[in-house]
Amino acid sequence: VTWIGIDLGGTKVYGVVAQGEKVKADAKRKTPLEGGPAAVVETIVGVIGDLGGTDGIKGVGIGAPGAVEHEGGVVRQAPNLAGWQENNVPLGPLVSKALGGLPVFVENDANAGTLAEHKRGAGRGASNVLGVWVGTGVGGGLILDGQLRRGPTGYAGEIGHTVVARDGRVCGCGRKGHLEAYAGRASMEREARAREAEGPPNMLVELAGDGRMTSKIWAESLDARDPVALELIDNAVSALGVAVADAVTLLDLDLIIIGGGLADRLGPTFVGRIEQAAREQIFAHGSPARVVPAALGDESGALGAALVAAASV
Amino acid sequence: VTWIGIDLGGTKVYGVVAQGEKVKADAKRKTPLEGGPAAVVETIVGVIGDLGGTDGIKGVGIGAPGAVEHEGGVVRQAPNLAGWQENNVPLGPLVSKALGGLPVFVENDANAGTLAEHKRGAGRGASNVLGVWVGTGVGGGLILDGQLRRGPTGYAGEIGHTVVARDGRVCGCGRKGHLEAYAGRASMEREARAREAEGPPNMLVELAGDGRMTSKIWAESLDARDPVALELIDNAVSALGVAVADAVTLLDLDLIIIGGGLADRLGPTFVGRIEQAAREQIFAHGSPARVVPAALGDESGALGAALVAAASV
Repeated sequence: VTWIGIDLGGTKVYGVVAQGEKVKADAKRKTPLEGGPAAVVETIVGVIGDLGGTDGIKGVGIGAPGAVEHEGGVVRQAPNLAGWQENNVPLGPLVSKALGGLPVFVENDANAGTLAEHKRGAGRGASNVLGVWVGTGVGGGLILDGQLRRGPTGYAGEIGHTVVARDGRVCGCGRKGHLEAYAGRASMEREARAREAEGPPNMLVELAGDGRMTSKIWAESLDARDPVALELIDNAVSALGVAVADAVTLLDLDLIIIGGGLADRLGPTFVGRIEQAAREQIFAHGSPARVVPAALGDESGALGAALVAAASV
Repeated sequence: VTWIGIDLGGTKVYGVVAQGEKVKADAKRKTPLEGGPAAVVETIVGVIGDLGGTDGIKGVGIGAPGAVEHEGGVVRQAPNLAGWQENNVPLGPLVSKALGGLPVFVENDANAGTLAEHKRGAGRGASNVLGVWVGTGVGGGLILDGQLRRGPTGYAGEIGHTVVARDGRVCGCGRKGHLEAYAGRASMEREARAREAEGPPNMLVELAGDGRMTSKIWAESLDARDPVALELIDNAVSALGVAVADAVTLLDLDLIIIGGGLADRLGPTFVGRIEQAAREQIFAHGSPARVVPAALGDESGALGAALVAAASV
């Protein structure tokens, strides 16, 4: 049986054809920056065309960046999608209609990625897993007793919006001191630009110019030991350590998987530092919890979305 | 069918006879301050005698303050019991032997209290509940999908040892910035005494003298608007707000129950302030999570221990 999984990201729409837990083909297009949900639906349908269309496809899963109501296929809010200001968009029904009624399921992208890592990546064999996705923002997905936990209102796992510093840096969501404000790339970029505006230049802004401060730029600035890059990444590691420790203490987790664009780029050293920072705060000294890098790279979101579709039909 | 539940606390051993979810009789003795586990076992057996002995009793549950391995009835550590330095004490088997082989079950006291509130108190009808027990320390218990969640190593729910202030006040457990360091009565007492040693006198130390700074003393000092009492309780409220918000954000909880000696004494105003502080930090603006006072008072731990026994046989 064959499924299509779509990872709807802030910069690209990435799709895979999955058979069981194997990826048979992939395709991507740029995420439209204007045109709202209608343009996004068109792009998703385009990627599905690039993948060979829907012949023989049993259903489609979409991982979306934002708050999702899985049952109705509704994207409640997607603040990280440019041009998507609408709330409560029935993305699943819209894509299904464009595909002639094929079943379409929508899942939070971090949940989808965590599910893929659990079934096929770094989380195989573990029962209680937190996936932490460090990219533009910080997403999270939670597996308890081997099952994805969405919670009654669908918000479970949002580790990026747990507090790591009371009255701390303002988060993209408007609250204060959330993990995402310290470890999300968008917030770190804002901070790097503010440092430059108030003080000496830093390599991050020098390399990025007016463009996006990519994970590559972060990695290069770290390698060059730029003081601002070092300090902001230290802050990110420390914030991630607190959030991971709190999740382990509250939930007695086996495994924490760190993925996402920035984490993938910074690699195992970054993840090892997060594990070290978490260990210093975890209450249960003998906790068996491990912190490991994600194994599936860019593919996890789309594969996870396909797995969601397969589990939902 | 009739069960006995024992709440083993730092100051008293409180026992109840429970039929279903109803308490038929109760009794208490002082917790021995020396003599270690053997003296505690003797006191527990004494309380059971005061309750009328074991005729017609199907089993005994014990709620113990500390880390518990439920399956083996083992208390791994109980730092808040004076004279109990031993690790890995098989309390269940020891009490069972003293009672001629009657089944005896041991549970973390905060888990037991949360279970009782869920079955018979403030948590009836809710499915996803966190119990927060604010007393000498800060304990926690977690109900997910209507079931007590112990976690694979038995440490789940330890909200008192989640971080609310990075590199903050040192906790009784030795880590830094944990909730218990701001909201546990023992830690707040240390802080109040340190303030007096370094600065002007405060009413808390004046009332407590060399004795224990009880919840009653905290309530009186607050009523008199003692500045140190006001500030330390403000800090406790703020720390509880952060920890509650983080648990709601991570787990999409319905209900948070605030109980324990200090919370019971300070009453609904204290709990309302915690709810307000939490709301300011919760990511999901429309979260239906409510924060409410515990309903069963002192009885919850012992009743919950009886319920644990009833569920285990």
